[in-house]
Amino acid sequence: MIDSSARFAKGFRMKLTPLFVAIFSFAALVFAPAAHAEETTAFRHFVSFQFKDGTSEAKKTEIVDAFMALKSKIDAISDLEWGGTENIEPLNDGFTHSFLVSFKDKAGLEAYLPHPAHEEFVRLLKPHLERVYVFDYTAKK
Amino acid sequence: MIDSSARFAKGFRMKLTPLFVAIFSFAALVFAPAAHAEETTAFRHFVSFQFKDGTSEAKKTEIVDAFMALKSKIDAISDLEWGGTENIEPLNDGFTHSFLVSFKDKAGLEAYLPHPAHEEFVRLLKPHLERVYVFDYTAKK
Repeated sequence: MIDSSARFAKGFRMKLTPLFVAIFSFAALVFAPAAHAEETTAFRHFVSFQFKDGTSEAKKTEIVDAFMALKSKIDAISDLEWGGTENIEPLNDGFTHSFLVSFKDKAGLEAYLPHPAHEEFVRLLKPHLERVYVFDYTAKK
Repeated sequence: MIDSSARFAKGFRMKLTPLFVAIFSFAALVFAPAAHAEETTAFRHFVSFQFKDGTSEAKKTEIVDAFMALKSKIDAISDLEWGGTENIEPLNDGFTHSFLVSFKDKAGLEAYLPHPAHEEFVRLLKPHLERVYVFDYTAKK
């Protein structure tokens, strides 16, 4: 009786092992890209703009859209986001639009700055830019 | 024979269903926090410091460590990272240390600012702070 239930348990485990492997492989495929995006070695290029007085809302929207479109034009960009100021404390020093450009490492930013698509964006931006703030850093947790 | 194998298949499915539920619940618990941190609705609190002349490196390290320790003290913080300037373009306006504090939404920042642990940190920082820059935004992709 003991032998028989041990054999049954062993057979049960052997049947389930490939199922576990399949399910965890699937889970790893689905969830790994999201986990990877949070790795601690990202290099960040944080940029704030203050536009010149009189820059139209339409022009600001065009500039934001052109900046965000760089993600599909420059391979080195691993992530790109932006936001308008929603400051609670008035410590944004006149800056109204910020962008956070992420790269795998500093070499990514070095490839981005002279990239023709970035230079084309700068030509669109420049006539409307009053001030810019830039802070580049290796993200540490 | 058909009836018998259908009964077997039904029994097999019924035995396995709780197993599937258990495994996927476990996978969701393990992987969901990483996936969550990358959602597009994050609210960001970006902060740059310029320290007063004469602030020792030991004091700067103490301040960085105290800031980073807020992650374990304030539940509203979903992510926290920092870095020293590695600017390629000299557009960081004298700021040398930046911190990116992430929340689920703006209510998170509203809970963070008056939190006793944050107020204690500000008391440590203030005597050594020359200037601060803050930009709060909803991250849009």
